[in-house]
Amino acid sequence: MAAASDFFAPRAAIDDLLYGFLTKKARSAPVPRQSALIRMLRDFMSGGKRVRPLLCVTGWFAAGGQGDTAHAVRLAASIELAHTCALIHDDIMDASDSRRGRPTVHRALADRHHTPWLAQQYGMGGAILLGDLALVWSDELLHTTPMPDAHRTAVLRCVDLARSELIAGQYLDLLITGDLHASLETVMSVIRYKTAKYTIERPLQVGAALAGGGPEVMSACTAYGVPLGEAFQLRDDVLGVFGDPDRTGKSRLDDLREGKCTSLIVHALRACDPDQADRLRTLLGDPDLGEQEAAEIRSLLVSTGARAAVEQMIEERYRRALDSLASSPFPPKVIHTLENVVEAIVHRTT
Amino acid sequence: MAAASDFFAPRAAIDDLLYGFLTKKARSAPVPRQSALIRMLRDFMSGGKRVRPLLCVTGWFAAGGQGDTAHAVRLAASIELAHTCALIHDDIMDASDSRRGRPTVHRALADRHHTPWLAQQYGMGGAILLGDLALVWSDELLHTTPMPDAHRTAVLRCVDLARSELIAGQYLDLLITGDLHASLETVMSVIRYKTAKYTIERPLQVGAALAGGGPEVMSACTAYGVPLGEAFQLRDDVLGVFGDPDRTGKSRLDDLREGKCTSLIVHALRACDPDQADRLRTLLGDPDLGEQEAAEIRSLLVSTGARAAVEQMIEERYRRALDSLASSPFPPKVIHTLENVVEAIVHRTT
Repeated sequence: MAAASDFFAPRAAIDDLLYGFLTKKARSAPVPRQSALIRMLRDFMSGGKRVRPLLCVTGWFAAGGQGDTAHAVRLAASIELAHTCALIHDDIMDASDSRRGRPTVHRALADRHHTPWLAQQYGMGGAILLGDLALVWSDELLHTTPMPDAHRTAVLRCVDLARSELIAGQYLDLLITGDLHASLETVMSVIRYKTAKYTIERPLQVGAALAGGGPEVMSACTAYGVPLGEAFQLRDDVLGVFGDPDRTGKSRLDDLREGKCTSLIVHALRACDPDQADRLRTLLGDPDLGEQEAAEIRSLLVSTGARAAVEQMIEERYRRALDSLASSPFPPKVIHTLENVVEAIVHRTT
Repeated sequence: MAAASDFFAPRAAIDDLLYGFLTKKARSAPVPRQSALIRMLRDFMSGGKRVRPLLCVTGWFAAGGQGDTAHAVRLAASIELAHTCALIHDDIMDASDSRRGRPTVHRALADRHHTPWLAQQYGMGGAILLGDLALVWSDELLHTTPMPDAHRTAVLRCVDLARSELIAGQYLDLLITGDLHASLETVMSVIRYKTAKYTIERPLQVGAALAGGGPEVMSACTAYGVPLGEAFQLRDDVLGVFGDPDRTGKSRLDDLREGKCTSLIVHALRACDPDQADRLRTLLGDPDLGEQEAAEIRSLLVSTGARAAVEQMIEERYRRALDSLASSPFPPKVIHTLENVVEAIVHRTT
């Protein structure tokens, strides 16, 4: 699959840039004691899948970018740094202890502090600051990416929009935390802002804007990115409850124990009878929920048709994303790459 | 004092811009339920003194800016929004309940939540996000400030630097929280990054860069801003313990109860005998510390010469800031304004 390897080709360059940038920052920290914190940021970043930055480079090709990818790679690295801010802050908000199989930043910092009664405050404070720093340095990479003055306005506008949309989605997600009466519309709104636009549409557009992509290219990024991004998150919802933990690397109990109001749950609550709804609301969000209760919920998600409904939503969006490519103004090679991305995202098991 | 009113003249324009910008954001929030959060940000911002944005406009005049101040005002408003992020996040880190006589953002949000066991998490999460949003919108104002392409690189570089220096200072401050063995060098390093550069030097330079200020102007901003900013914070240290609460609006016990390792404390610990040092370390950081113990500490700060030493440090920096103006390339009217700013900052009682 030449096209799939095309998609991943810039990964090494993105990683090298980030590693070099942060290593230099650690060495030249204005406050020497900050160096260890910066190295922690560098190590934390080494585990990412780089979906957003790779889409940024793809967007650059989609809008006709050719030759040296250095500027697109720099912009892509900037996107990944801003995303790191979002992850670090999200982990504090969720009080998560681990990410990518390693301790979260606030947890790792707290563990390193030698005064027990100050450790938690230090961990949280340091993590808020490290997230802020990642965002500030994302700006530094953004501001030092060479680009024609004529393209700059569109690039900056798109970056600013992506960030504020993500925050809107995160805030709505926070508002419905613990609320098992949210509507499908609300849940889809979280998905649209927190995942679809932020993860797929906007990174493609940022890269396209760097190459001077016009309105047609931008619309094609939306037509492809929004349904695909929604399908991506809906697939995540399904895998979170029905996935194979050996393959996903995630427990199938977390979403249920958190009482997360996902697309599956909303569908089930709409379809089941009042007794079943009561039972479902009782089980969801129980931090001690076990395998037996999880099996009961899964069986309810199947019998109410919730799983089938979400699979159908994924299928519709999968079709829409693929169809959009047929009429897109992207070069054939990019279309082929983006077709493979759809397959990889929608039919994944991990 | 014509020059003092010159300094404050752009305040109304800065406030109007911020109010209008945030009102529009609240009305057009992608997620309607976010509107109340945005109005909260707008109200939180209404109480600031606007020192940094006013210095930004002054910096623009200092580098020869003339005529319509609209672009300088927009850039100044951007600085105030980024500063609001710093305040909101700082209040979370310090677990502060009030600022400017009103509840802090995380506190106000927690108070509004109707589910008691989720209220704290919601307050903290919402405040982290609102701080992030303020930073993202600071960027939007920055990125949409019209400026000659030739000046943009310097403006962006200076903004990025200011933000990362602030974080370096805040992190060092966090590291020495609860540490009553910090050196004067470390304490002065916190002051330099967290206050001197961030509050005075960089805002002046950002404004100057917008007007195309050359290296001479930039150096003059440093020569003036760093000593003045240090004097500003040292004065704060003195007022925090010796100020008149009716005038400062702040309790004289907070710094002592927090066990803040200020310039006063470092001086006292260096000058006193081991018994006195033990006593000081016992009293400082006691959350129940009363007026009597505070009086005991104050007496020690005087008898050890700590207060006099800090007053002398302020005086030296006051002189250095004023002297720097004598040889600065700023227009005479700006010099006169900046002389008044020195007076206002160094000899203030509030």
